[in-house]
Amino acid sequence: MMKTNLDRIINDIETLATFNATPGEGVTRSSYSKEDQQAKDYLKKEMEKIGLEVWEDEFATLFGRREGKDPDAPAIMIGSHYDSVVNGGAFDGAAGVVAALETLRVFEENNIEHDYPIEIIAMNAEEGETFGSGSGVSNSRAMVGTLTQEELDLKKNRFGETKREAMKKYGLVPDLEAAKRDLSKIKSFIELHIEQGPNLEAQNKDIGLVEYLPGIGRYIVKFYGEVADSTAPMNNRKDALLAASKFTLAVNRIINELGEGITGAVGEMHVTPNSHQFVPEFAEVAVEVRTMDPELVEKMNLLDEFKKEIKTIEAETNVKIELTERARMGYSNPTPPSVMDKDTVSLMEEVCKDLDYSYMIINKGTGHDAMITAEFIPTNMIYVPSKDGISHHPDEWTDYEDLQKGADVMLHTVKKLSKKD
Amino acid sequence: MMKTNLDRIINDIETLATFNATPGEGVTRSSYSKEDQQAKDYLKKEMEKIGLEVWEDEFATLFGRREGKDPDAPAIMIGSHYDSVVNGGAFDGAAGVVAALETLRVFEENNIEHDYPIEIIAMNAEEGETFGSGSGVSNSRAMVGTLTQEELDLKKNRFGETKREAMKKYGLVPDLEAAKRDLSKIKSFIELHIEQGPNLEAQNKDIGLVEYLPGIGRYIVKFYGEVADSTAPMNNRKDALLAASKFTLAVNRIINELGEGITGAVGEMHVTPNSHQFVPEFAEVAVEVRTMDPELVEKMNLLDEFKKEIKTIEAETNVKIELTERARMGYSNPTPPSVMDKDTVSLMEEVCKDLDYSYMIINKGTGHDAMITAEFIPTNMIYVPSKDGISHHPDEWTDYEDLQKGADVMLHTVKKLSKKD
Repeated sequence: MMKTNLDRIINDIETLATFNATPGEGVTRSSYSKEDQQAKDYLKKEMEKIGLEVWEDEFATLFGRREGKDPDAPAIMIGSHYDSVVNGGAFDGAAGVVAALETLRVFEENNIEHDYPIEIIAMNAEEGETFGSGSGVSNSRAMVGTLTQEELDLKKNRFGETKREAMKKYGLVPDLEAAKRDLSKIKSFIELHIEQGPNLEAQNKDIGLVEYLPGIGRYIVKFYGEVADSTAPMNNRKDALLAASKFTLAVNRIINELGEGITGAVGEMHVTPNSHQFVPEFAEVAVEVRTMDPELVEKMNLLDEFKKEIKTIEAETNVKIELTERARMGYSNPTPPSVMDKDTVSLMEEVCKDLDYSYMIINKGTGHDAMITAEFIPTNMIYVPSKDGISHHPDEWTDYEDLQKGADVMLHTVKKLSKKD
Repeated sequence: MMKTNLDRIINDIETLATFNATPGEGVTRSSYSKEDQQAKDYLKKEMEKIGLEVWEDEFATLFGRREGKDPDAPAIMIGSHYDSVVNGGAFDGAAGVVAALETLRVFEENNIEHDYPIEIIAMNAEEGETFGSGSGVSNSRAMVGTLTQEELDLKKNRFGETKREAMKKYGLVPDLEAAKRDLSKIKSFIELHIEQGPNLEAQNKDIGLVEYLPGIGRYIVKFYGEVADSTAPMNNRKDALLAASKFTLAVNRIINELGEGITGAVGEMHVTPNSHQFVPEFAEVAVEVRTMDPELVEKMNLLDEFKKEIKTIEAETNVKIELTERARMGYSNPTPPSVMDKDTVSLMEEVCKDLDYSYMIINKGTGHDAMITAEFIPTNMIYVPSKDGISHHPDEWTDYEDLQKGADVMLHTVKKLSKKD
């Protein structure tokens, strides 16, 4: 069967990795930076080489379109994002952009016929880290029309610039109306992404296919106690860790009471000073609640239950407790699950079998642009393995052969989808 | 009133700090290293300058003796240790050695008459970090006769050498019998040490006087769960943090049930992977139990209570739990409280008032050589302030003027104690 080209994939990834503000310390290609501009210029040039119609929207999303036989038909969109976190890796985002680019290179050199237009989409501002929690997947939100003016002025990057200010400096005038796409003109969106988890590697599978991105509720709870020596009287303590432990048990009980279909836990706890010699002064926990069932999203709103529990624990421990929601990706908290297109998952399974690539279903992913588009457009994802499950870190790595296999699945899926029956 | 000399104190501290394996990254003067040899040589030279009789025992404890009018009378011993942790500070240990040295310099230059002999003791191998938990305050234990042959072969330093091997390389043949002192020939031991805590600074006091070093029980509990994605079913989890939280509450309940005079808590918790996205795989907690009452030490042995609790939690959570005691300083766990000499505390209070130095009682200290000697010899401590409570860290700092005040209290206390009424 037809395959993508490994050398070109390696060259793309390695070239993109040179557009990097922190050489030697992982890849840093923040949204609206010089490095992101350089990456975009490279992608533009590569798209033009294969005759795509190339343009950029008002948020620096780069599009490259290959017309099909029916120019009025809606487009099949493929791609991912080209920005990165600070000291991240060379694959998160870039892998999906490169797979899309390589797919259309193969289309071009083999003169593959297709009815539907195919568009590469290379998005910016996917990483929420850049402008802070809830600011990510910005360009897909601009495209579907859910990004707001307020957000552009609300949060700041590590240089103290709002998104609007950073965009201005980059040469953009953010125009929400202009960035909106006519969604009836998009047939589907397919995003290849590194798994950012250990499952493919652990199960020794080539490809991860996604049926759902779970709906997620996130809460941060901070416990303000008082530091004291271990000899401090028991009845006069404000032990932050004791309060945090009580809350951890309460979370477990509350989530169990919600019944089937909702899961969750305190997965993260930070204690200060975290020394055996001292009564803990401060603790912070992160609660994660998840569901695959759109019907259950409202039930995942645990603010009232948590507040009630907090009142009790405050009374029992004299620790002051602060509850906040960690809204993510421009959604309110909790977010609904994102349902991927079932027929295309089946098609991809066939493609994997034809290519003799092993695959598994992974419904554990976190936020991607695909999560945004899934509400509006038939959407699918292809995961490729992440070494040791690591991402957002200089050690992030995907073997090029694994990435090529993902690109092959992309190629053959698009080849089939782009033909009218 | 007579004072110690600030310039000499500064010179001593700064000179000792140059005997350092990690310049620019705090002071590293590990037991039985080249740097500790250099520090000892410097101290020896300084002791000889003021006419002390100088010798070294079989564990590299350096002694410098000034005879009193009654050479058969027991000696007043003053000093501390000259080794440090890795990347520690210039004051922990050294401060007390310098204060002792400076005290006898003032005795010499002012021809102060005294009946009892006075001995400076500069100990090695105080820091338990060097050869691992339970290996510290080694030289005071050798002196009082509680150090064992087994220990010399049991634990290893970061170079993989046992204490015996490291001593051999350093040129010592460890001889436990020879190192024992006739304790009837020691009238008292006084150790000046940096506080290693925030109290003096917070209360804006010059001097800390100690009535007790608390008795301490320490336990480490490890929770072995299983990592899982947040979407894993609730009834099939092995959540290490959930189990650790249950145990934290149990510790609080058990210690409360022990009644007045015993305090304690889980002060330290470490969680792996500590990510909101995952069910925690592993947690480790450190339990600290304390008492000031020698009668209550046995009650602090909580092994049985903890084991019972662990069994229950294992059944409830499917998490495997491992309980270990963290024996410290060559003692069994728990250790009894160390009672300081009351009359000398009163005398020191008078000295502080005479010098117009503010003081407070601090009964919160951790392990010192004074803890070992207190069981055998009337023992006292003088604390001087630690900036921000920091020790065992490059940022460890005590203002030289504060150290001088501590040395002044040492000077006048020894001056009074060394005269027969």
